[in-house]
Amino acid sequence: MTTERRRRLHLNAFLMEAGHHEAAWRLPDSNPRADFDLQHWIKLARLAEDAKFDSLFLADGPAVIGTGEFRPPGQLEPLTLLTALSQATSRIGLIATVSSTYNEPYNLARRLASVDHVSGGRAGWNIVTSAGADEAANFGLTDRPAHAERYARADEFLRIAKALWDSWESEAVLADKAAGRYADPGRLHRLDHKGRYFSVAGPLNVERPPQGHPLLVQAGSSEDGREFAARHAEAIFTAHRTYERAADFYADIKARARAAGRDPDGVVVLPGIVPYIGSTEAEARAIAQELDELRVPAYGLRQLAAVFETEPSVFDLDAPLPGFILARPKLEGSQSRSDLIIELAEREQLTVRQVISRIGGGRGHFELVGTPDQVADAVTAWFEGGAADGFNIMAPALPSGLETFIEEVLPILRAKGLFREDYQGTTLREHYGLPIPANQFHHAAG
Amino acid sequence: MTTERRRRLHLNAFLMEAGHHEAAWRLPDSNPRADFDLQHWIKLARLAEDAKFDSLFLADGPAVIGTGEFRPPGQLEPLTLLTALSQATSRIGLIATVSSTYNEPYNLARRLASVDHVSGGRAGWNIVTSAGADEAANFGLTDRPAHAERYARADEFLRIAKALWDSWESEAVLADKAAGRYADPGRLHRLDHKGRYFSVAGPLNVERPPQGHPLLVQAGSSEDGREFAARHAEAIFTAHRTYERAADFYADIKARARAAGRDPDGVVVLPGIVPYIGSTEAEARAIAQELDELRVPAYGLRQLAAVFETEPSVFDLDAPLPGFILARPKLEGSQSRSDLIIELAEREQLTVRQVISRIGGGRGHFELVGTPDQVADAVTAWFEGGAADGFNIMAPALPSGLETFIEEVLPILRAKGLFREDYQGTTLREHYGLPIPANQFHHAAG
Repeated sequence: MTTERRRRLHLNAFLMEAGHHEAAWRLPDSNPRADFDLQHWIKLARLAEDAKFDSLFLADGPAVIGTGEFRPPGQLEPLTLLTALSQATSRIGLIATVSSTYNEPYNLARRLASVDHVSGGRAGWNIVTSAGADEAANFGLTDRPAHAERYARADEFLRIAKALWDSWESEAVLADKAAGRYADPGRLHRLDHKGRYFSVAGPLNVERPPQGHPLLVQAGSSEDGREFAARHAEAIFTAHRTYERAADFYADIKARARAAGRDPDGVVVLPGIVPYIGSTEAEARAIAQELDELRVPAYGLRQLAAVFETEPSVFDLDAPLPGFILARPKLEGSQSRSDLIIELAEREQLTVRQVISRIGGGRGHFELVGTPDQVADAVTAWFEGGAADGFNIMAPALPSGLETFIEEVLPILRAKGLFREDYQGTTLREHYGLPIPANQFHHAAG
Repeated sequence: MTTERRRRLHLNAFLMEAGHHEAAWRLPDSNPRADFDLQHWIKLARLAEDAKFDSLFLADGPAVIGTGEFRPPGQLEPLTLLTALSQATSRIGLIATVSSTYNEPYNLARRLASVDHVSGGRAGWNIVTSAGADEAANFGLTDRPAHAERYARADEFLRIAKALWDSWESEAVLADKAAGRYADPGRLHRLDHKGRYFSVAGPLNVERPPQGHPLLVQAGSSEDGREFAARHAEAIFTAHRTYERAADFYADIKARARAAGRDPDGVVVLPGIVPYIGSTEAEARAIAQELDELRVPAYGLRQLAAVFETEPSVFDLDAPLPGFILARPKLEGSQSRSDLIIELAEREQLTVRQVISRIGGGRGHFELVGTPDQVADAVTAWFEGGAADGFNIMAPALPSGLETFIEEVLPILRAKGLFREDYQGTTLREHYGLPIPANQFHHAAG
């Protein structure tokens, strides 16, 4: 037995209804009504918890996805779903995407604190600023707010949310039955925040959550996104197709965190991987190919058009991306996503049809097609080579893709001593090795 | 066996942390940390479900209650708590208060639909317009919007929410794996609503909930509140201290519903009762007295001042209510609540101290102090005499007050054939005998 602390990798199970591949719902074994079937989600959550994943994650946006014609267009509101899943699990962390642009800080801080309470300290918030024009139209806006504006609002939102979570000091509740004194009003703090976007009096009407603050997660990789992540994020979901890009991003984020006065180990970087696993490479490729052949090209064209804020008709399936797109127009939506696609198309000289095929399954993430050993080797190389602190596992089909990863790849990672055999703690912060934040209102006694 | 359908009464368990009495947390058996203790709520929910209550209910407002000095000032966000409770129960309806003033229709319609999905059709929404200035201050407002303004906004909010819940026709999802066609976009409806308060494009990104719409509940008894209830509410929580007032309200609401073109049986009227139950009247009075003696007068004064939108210093504990209050100033907060207190004070010639004592436990509701037979007789008289379709049971202390009601009063009501022996359906609408609303977007095939 050694007391030396070995660096372990962290795994997040990024869940989706039938899987991350756009055509996953068409597979013979898929449940095409999985999106609103709680039993589907409970099954996935328990699968990930039994395998000792750090967390599970639900992406989200407040609008239907596309027209619904080619892919499930809706999903349960993710904090509601997480709350239900919190009662079917006991250890795994629970992370949901929620928009800082289309919520009020008081309401959202309260909901996240409440999920943290009912889950026993397992809530995480993936902060998004909501890039879609279709989302804006559900909230009275003719167009989404500008990119920089959204991040400025998110920054103020976060500062308020943190103060609200801190507004009850741990000594606030006296519960003195004999004296009839419930709480010490001097330890329930008002914010009286008046800022550019919000005015919030406080205190929050929920006791400080078990984790202090829910775990703060971020995924935008634009300049604004990285700066925001360096200030606030404790875990980062990111998309890179090559080791070099992932390693550059990793070094950049850690440096920015350090520059912001934070411990770089307090920011856990988790690139997404999309594993297609077979007992041979050929079998793995066949699994990927089966899914790719189920794609509907019209769907991919619409997706591509949405990223570049244009119409599907500007694309020719058998030609390269049009010149005005290669010129990288300034977009109000997701700049990191569009840059990633342009780079991929230029680097590999792809036609639009090929671009669609390449972004459809993994959406710009690292696709790993191979045997369990090959997948485990790639994971190990990224982790040990300084490109990742762990991974965001995006199974192309669910539950099958997650089951295969757990059954075939995890034992190899465990044999290498890279992944936990069991949970050591009970909270999401404990799984990621992150501390409970200090309370900004806490003063020494007296 | 008879096929004649007997009218049965409906029961809602209005839950609170340690009970409805302001001093309940001080009782020796009370858990003063019940508010954030999920196990407390699960226990109460299972108690009510085992007793076959139609529903349980959580009140709410987005601000701390008072200063926290004399009574628990916070609570878990109620839709989060209901979602957790939905996984610990299987039949009982789950109703939460949520503000229409401090939420966006798209977000809230989605959350309610999601709770309805994960609970299997058991969600209800008690619509409040948020009367408090302390709530307004958490949402960037220097004061709450005016009373009529709040109701106009709520009306538009409801019309949008209903359209969003209807936006997926039941035939919308094809899930045609062979053809690769997931949904029929012609059956996913946009609203393109542009109104006075909101612009919402739609469709919702959640499939129509199992109940069509979550059950719509309302509690305001002002003129604006009654008109709103007649248009939208399917169940009404109301507060009356006398049979006459309750019967007047009942007749008025049913007439207004009829005038709005609705079936009056589609609006279930549930007055609140606060039962103090003892094996003798003297024992019941002793239970009430024990609680009253635990009151802190400073707390009651603050509560009274808040209702009348003034300062505690205007009151003299041993004098009547001051003249400017008896003159019924126009208030922006809850007018029905303030009217009720003035009427009580005038009818019984009460001092401020007595008023505080009378409104502290039951907050204007029907307090029933007596033996199980006396309580059951009063319930029966109101129900059979046309003052109620059922009751909102507000136990002064929890869980004890609910346990006693279930153990002592329910058997009497069941022996009279007035309350169910078991659930007949699985949804909240089924328990209350209310139909699934027609889908406004549904057209005949073709």
